[in-house]
Amino acid sequence: MLLRMSTLLLKTLREEPADAEVPSHRLLVRAGFVRRAAPGGYTWLPLGKLVLDRVTAIVRDEMLAAGGQEVSFPALLPREPYQVSGRWTEYGEDIFTLRDRRDAEYLLAPTHEEMFTLLVQDLTSSYRDFPVLLFQVQTKFRDEARPRGGLLRGREFLMKDAYSFDLDDEGLRFSYGVMRATYQRVFERLGLNHTVVSAVSGAMGGSASEEFLATAEVGEDTFVGCTTCDYAANTEAVVTPAPPAREATAPPLAVHDTPDTPTIAALVALANERQLGGRADWTAADTLKNVVVTVHHPGGADEVVAIGLPGDREVDLKRLNAVLAPATATLFDDFASRPDLVKGYLGPQGLELRYLADPRVAAGTAWLTGANQAGKHATDVVAGRDFTPDGTIEAAEVRAGDPCPACAGGTLTLRRGIEIGHIFQLGRRYTDAFRVDVLGADGKPVRPTMGCYGIGVSRAVAAIAEQHHDERGLCWPAAVAPADVHIVAAGRDGQVEAALTLGGTLARAGFRVLVDDRPSVSAGVKFTDAELIGIPRTVVIGRRLAEGCAEVRDRRTGERNDVPLVDVAGAIAGKLG
Amino acid sequence: MLLRMSTLLLKTLREEPADAEVPSHRLLVRAGFVRRAAPGGYTWLPLGKLVLDRVTAIVRDEMLAAGGQEVSFPALLPREPYQVSGRWTEYGEDIFTLRDRRDAEYLLAPTHEEMFTLLVQDLTSSYRDFPVLLFQVQTKFRDEARPRGGLLRGREFLMKDAYSFDLDDEGLRFSYGVMRATYQRVFERLGLNHTVVSAVSGAMGGSASEEFLATAEVGEDTFVGCTTCDYAANTEAVVTPAPPAREATAPPLAVHDTPDTPTIAALVALANERQLGGRADWTAADTLKNVVVTVHHPGGADEVVAIGLPGDREVDLKRLNAVLAPATATLFDDFASRPDLVKGYLGPQGLELRYLADPRVAAGTAWLTGANQAGKHATDVVAGRDFTPDGTIEAAEVRAGDPCPACAGGTLTLRRGIEIGHIFQLGRRYTDAFRVDVLGADGKPVRPTMGCYGIGVSRAVAAIAEQHHDERGLCWPAAVAPADVHIVAAGRDGQVEAALTLGGTLARAGFRVLVDDRPSVSAGVKFTDAELIGIPRTVVIGRRLAEGCAEVRDRRTGERNDVPLVDVAGAIAGKLG
Repeated sequence: MLLRMSTLLLKTLREEPADAEVPSHRLLVRAGFVRRAAPGGYTWLPLGKLVLDRVTAIVRDEMLAAGGQEVSFPALLPREPYQVSGRWTEYGEDIFTLRDRRDAEYLLAPTHEEMFTLLVQDLTSSYRDFPVLLFQVQTKFRDEARPRGGLLRGREFLMKDAYSFDLDDEGLRFSYGVMRATYQRVFERLGLNHTVVSAVSGAMGGSASEEFLATAEVGEDTFVGCTTCDYAANTEAVVTPAPPAREATAPPLAVHDTPDTPTIAALVALANERQLGGRADWTAADTLKNVVVTVHHPGGADEVVAIGLPGDREVDLKRLNAVLAPATATLFDDFASRPDLVKGYLGPQGLELRYLADPRVAAGTAWLTGANQAGKHATDVVAGRDFTPDGTIEAAEVRAGDPCPACAGGTLTLRRGIEIGHIFQLGRRYTDAFRVDVLGADGKPVRPTMGCYGIGVSRAVAAIAEQHHDERGLCWPAAVAPADVHIVAAGRDGQVEAALTLGGTLARAGFRVLVDDRPSVSAGVKFTDAELIGIPRTVVIGRRLAEGCAEVRDRRTGERNDVPLVDVAGAIAGKLG
Repeated sequence: MLLRMSTLLLKTLREEPADAEVPSHRLLVRAGFVRRAAPGGYTWLPLGKLVLDRVTAIVRDEMLAAGGQEVSFPALLPREPYQVSGRWTEYGEDIFTLRDRRDAEYLLAPTHEEMFTLLVQDLTSSYRDFPVLLFQVQTKFRDEARPRGGLLRGREFLMKDAYSFDLDDEGLRFSYGVMRATYQRVFERLGLNHTVVSAVSGAMGGSASEEFLATAEVGEDTFVGCTTCDYAANTEAVVTPAPPAREATAPPLAVHDTPDTPTIAALVALANERQLGGRADWTAADTLKNVVVTVHHPGGADEVVAIGLPGDREVDLKRLNAVLAPATATLFDDFASRPDLVKGYLGPQGLELRYLADPRVAAGTAWLTGANQAGKHATDVVAGRDFTPDGTIEAAEVRAGDPCPACAGGTLTLRRGIEIGHIFQLGRRYTDAFRVDVLGADGKPVRPTMGCYGIGVSRAVAAIAEQHHDERGLCWPAAVAPADVHIVAAGRDGQVEAALTLGGTLARAGFRVLVDDRPSVSAGVKFTDAELIGIPRTVVIGRRLAEGCAEVRDRRTGERNDVPLVDVAGAIAGKLG
């Protein structure tokens, strides 16, 4: 491959694009890899398309090596299969739907569990046909409420989705393990520093799932690690260790006048000032905060629910939504319609709505909380004695320093990452929905069990750019760079010709070559552009051409060496290897 | 590449699929290359995906060799650019449109002229940046009224669309010529017997265009050739040679009672019987047929129009719609609302609507036609004397034997083909719409001129299947076959192992290999499947394995040769080369 910048459709930008919030977005636009074409939709320009294709090729290579068979489904699909699975309703506004000229309903499929299940039902009949591992690399569409970060969260993006079908749980676990190892190899080859974390399955359904997060400050996902053991999880998946249930030893519930204390801070200050319950050491952690939310069930029904949690923690809506999925929750704000809900003075005792408590609100624990009358709170409100929650819920924020749920003594640390892969042990949700049965080895029908495995291919390009850049521009890992070598002709007589000659020689030797042969561009601009574009090696054809030498530069380290022209191929090959 | 049929997701069918009308559709489904997933939407199964990828690779290779740069646009685009160009309205029901969660309007783009024009406006500024040739290979969506023929006319399909931008007409003609030659190379490499025909541009706009038609009985396009010269055109593009205008020498118009003659046949019979105008040699070609149609203009306005043509010809609605595009026409049938239009007895003289005449209805020609009164016709109705058409129109059917418009003496022959490519000299329709100007060499602004060039990639797979099959199944050309060699293990002891060993050897030597290692399938079924799947060479590991021999079969010719195992690679390479 030999690309000439004199004809390449490329315009680098010196200014930051106004709408770009994160480094990968800024740099991919500035270096001419992508351009915005629609809200959440990007055009891949020639250099960007080369990177996307190389990333795709690595993903495909590893999927085939793992025994995957590649297929390709339509993106535009009729409503029926998604109606059967329930996802038409569950996804709601998050998917694009349309009606065709005959008024039939279609969707742009977010993923293809339904269709792969139907295909396997169509093409298999016996236990001999299993296991099956299928994948596709496909443009996906989702009506994201808030597209952001350029390629990081778009409404149209490239995804590799794979599906395994096994006859029993052991087979599923094996397939899942193969995909887990495959994903680690894929992300290693892509040069992505990543962590595998436990995750919740969300609208996909199923039991076990893990996310592959590329560590990055701009990542949307927060994940925890343990200071002591190897526990790692998405914050949505963190399980709060509950204290053991105990006898209620507290005095009886007592109601106190607490005027003007609608906030935890005001309540704690007043409780200490007035020494409620004979104490002056009240902290927010001793109070029970009751947050009212509206839960929107798929299909349209709304339910008002109260959530109880220690007063020193906020409700994390992302964690709450993860446990409620496919339902979603928003903060309740229509207190005018519910005079029984006294805002700022709510307590769980006697509330007439569903009450879900944080695991820390264990049976026997005593709390300072609202008395359900304006200006009044109650002390010694004991869980299991004065109120009984309708269940527990993981809705409280996770904080650094929280105890590790997996070991004794470890505490949690928090980091941020970009979700680049997600693997699920789905189980039989879809084979049950479509009643898929095949002949078992014993002559009886067997219902296959499924796994599904996704990689955000276009998002991975952005994640690589997040992890591989510096203040001067992008620094692509060799495996995915748009070219292996960027030859810069400084511009004097004969240098452009020499650069093109060297480029031809290197291209014939199998290198991917970009030559900056632009006639009316200064050497300084060419060097700046080369650093912005970020190809691993730059070869400068400049002053020392007369002596038969070029300068080889390493984009990442900045190292520079003068090399005889005849040795350039060897010098680059050594560096790339 | 080594694929094993024991694990391949493949189920061949002995029965014809009920919904398949054409050979390519029947065979691609029966041989397990595609499966229907939606109305007009097909899933590519593993073998089909391999063929699709090989076809795509050839298209990409030739586009890059022609200097094309690959990009990739979103498919889901906002309404605005298509509103500016007018295509939002022109395409009407033929495109899929939707509204997002904020009620903004989007379309699934049928092609991307608007977006490529905006991209070039964004990334270029000077004459030095031209010419530019860009392409993408992308899934396209069209709301076809009648999807048919499997991959031949779908609602979701793979297309390569390319766009050239030049500074002047000469440049456009050059770019167009490069693309024309490129397309011929592409279709030659794909093994497609094809004809390049003049075409009309339809809703794309622009001046010159040609179609590449793969000759096939099942083709939707009818095209003409000349018995004498090299003229070739889509029937929609055939221009009817008009007779020269001449003096009107006919007697004055005379009205005759012609009861019960609402059809041309009845009229001719009566005219001869009664010797109207003193003649008994009337034929349908002497009558003037007047067909009333409703023209639906984009945006919603309807217009009633009459079309005059010799009575021995029918209106060809496909030709009519081609000249009216982006408007469309349907036959008018609401005569009750227009008492001035006397059905069966219409004549152009005194009609109160727009009247468009076939070119054969030249000034000075005299006709037997309706008198606009029930049961009456008129003789010697002379064009230019008794009526003057509002214009001419190419709406009459083209017939074999019609005179060639390009030479003297030649006549037309008719054949059918599948449109696999279409190239357009678009001109400045889109650069005008978006006011794209760049700095010219003389310092003045220049407006670039555009060409656009499409290849139906998935349709090409079906066209190849149409041209390359026999009664036993598919016969893929080597360049696009899913594999180079299909090794069949007849099934006795050791034959499967020998087949896999040979497969491994051939795969390491660079061959694409499919091995039929299915344990419980008879040799007969394996041979039948091999012929259905249609890989160019089959190697049978059977009786002569003990002597170290295999049988090499040629799928197309049926030729069979016993070859020592060690010579199989050479035998296949020779055949493929």
